[in-house]
Amino acid sequence: MGEAAADKIVTAAILIIGNEILSGRTQDANLAYIAKGLNEVGVTLREARVIPDIEATIVATVNELRAAYDYLFTTGGIGPTHDDITSESIAKAFGLKWVVHPEAHKHFLNFYAPSELNEARMRMATTPEGASLVYNPVSRAPGFRIGNVYVFAGIPRVMQGMFDSIKGELKGGRPMLSRTVATGLAEGVLAKGLGEIQNRYADIEIGSYPIMRRGAYGVNLVLRGRDAERLATAAAEVAAMVRSLGDTPVEE
Amino acid sequence: MGEAAADKIVTAAILIIGNEILSGRTQDANLAYIAKGLNEVGVTLREARVIPDIEATIVATVNELRAAYDYLFTTGGIGPTHDDITSESIAKAFGLKWVVHPEAHKHFLNFYAPSELNEARMRMATTPEGASLVYNPVSRAPGFRIGNVYVFAGIPRVMQGMFDSIKGELKGGRPMLSRTVATGLAEGVLAKGLGEIQNRYADIEIGSYPIMRRGAYGVNLVLRGRDAERLATAAAEVAAMVRSLGDTPVEE
Repeated sequence: MGEAAADKIVTAAILIIGNEILSGRTQDANLAYIAKGLNEVGVTLREARVIPDIEATIVATVNELRAAYDYLFTTGGIGPTHDDITSESIAKAFGLKWVVHPEAHKHFLNFYAPSELNEARMRMATTPEGASLVYNPVSRAPGFRIGNVYVFAGIPRVMQGMFDSIKGELKGGRPMLSRTVATGLAEGVLAKGLGEIQNRYADIEIGSYPIMRRGAYGVNLVLRGRDAERLATAAAEVAAMVRSLGDTPVEE
Repeated sequence: MGEAAADKIVTAAILIIGNEILSGRTQDANLAYIAKGLNEVGVTLREARVIPDIEATIVATVNELRAAYDYLFTTGGIGPTHDDITSESIAKAFGLKWVVHPEAHKHFLNFYAPSELNEARMRMATTPEGASLVYNPVSRAPGFRIGNVYVFAGIPRVMQGMFDSIKGELKGGRPMLSRTVATGLAEGVLAKGLGEIQNRYADIEIGSYPIMRRGAYGVNLVLRGRDAERLATAAAEVAAMVRSLGDTPVEE
C-alpha cells in the first residue's frame, strides 16, 4: 500500500435489513462483528442502519449509503422465502437486471436434485447482473458483491463466514489502534482533565465508558488513533491524570 | 383510546449515538429492549440508526428522524465527559437554548456536596430549554423529552429504567400481536406455499427465520398483525401447509 493510500480515511456503513430486528424478536449480532473486522483492515465504520423488508426503503437506503461511503455491507434477506427481497432490491438500486448467476447455478446443480431445485431455491442463485459471488462456508446461498456493496446473509454464523472470506480484499487505510486506561474514579471527577487532554490530541479519539468492575463502578477511558506513538503518549497523559487524582490506573 | 386513534399506525425510530458501538467495542443491547416495549404499546419501530459522537451528524440525523416518525428515541452521550454531546446537540437540532434545568439542579444539590457539583456534573443537569425530565432510577443524570424526542442514557440498565418510566405515556395504536409456527422443513420447501399465504393476507406480516432446534436445522415462521382473529386464521393456514408437506408444526 502506498503512502497516499495509507493516509486516506476509508469509510463504510452497515445496513441491517430485517423486520425481525426492528420487532425486537432477534438481537442483532452482526454489527459488532463487522465493525471489529473493519478496524483490523483500516476501514472506519461511520454509520449503521436497521430497516424493514420493504423494497422502496431498501432501494433508497442502499443508494444513499453506497454514495456516501467507500463501502456498504448489507446483512439479511437473501434466503428463498417471499420476505427475502434484498437481492432484487439491490438490483433495482443499481438499475441492473436481476439474473441467474451461472456460477451459483452450477453450484446448486451439484447440490440439489433437479426436483429439489425449485423456483424458490433458484432465487438464491439470482443476483444483480455482473455481481461477483461471496463464498458461503456454512450453507448453500452465496452472498455477492456489486460495485462497492457487499451483500451478506443475516444468520450470524453465515454472515461471519462470508465477511471473513472477503475481508482480505478490502482496501483500507492505516488500522485504528486502541489503548484503554481503567480507573475506579467517577466520570464527573475525570471529565475536566480528560477534556483538556482531548483538546491537545485532535488525532486521538478519547471515549469515557462507565463499567461495573469487581462489584464496583469504574470507568474505561478508551483512546483510539492510527499513530501508535501519539496514542502511547496520550495514554500516558491520561494515566498520569488518573494518578494525580489519587487513583492507580490499570492500563490495557 | 378512540377508534380513530386505535387504527392509526404510530411510528418510531431509534438513534443510537456512540463511537463505542461503531468501533465494535460495545455490543448494542438497547434496540431490542426498546423495540419490544414499543410493540407492547402499539408503536411500530420503522428504523434504527447508529451514528458517532459528532455534533453535525447528531443534529442532522435528529432533525431527519423526528420529522419522519411520530417518536424518536435516542440512547447514549448524556454523561459528564467531553464525548457526551447528545444533549447540547439536540438543543441545536431544535434551535433551543441549552440551559440548566431547575428540577435537575435541585436534585443534584440534594445529592452532591457543593465542592463535588463541578462544571462537568452540571452539564448533566443541562437540557434544551423547555425539556421535561425523564426519571433515572439507577444513577444521577436524568434523561429528558423535548417535542417528540426522548433522550436516554446508553448504559442498558439505566436506559431500561428510563424507558420503563415513560412507556405509559406513549400514545400508540393497536398493539402488534404475533404467532409462531415452527417446523423442521427447509425454507426452500416452504417458500412457495408461504408466499401464497402471504399474498392472501396483506394485513399480516409473515417472516421466515431459520434456526437450530435440538441440534437440527428448522424454521420459525412468524406471523405478526394487529387483528387477533385474522392472525389466528393465517397461522392455521401456515400450520396446515406444513402438515401438507409432511411435517408436524409446533405452534407457539
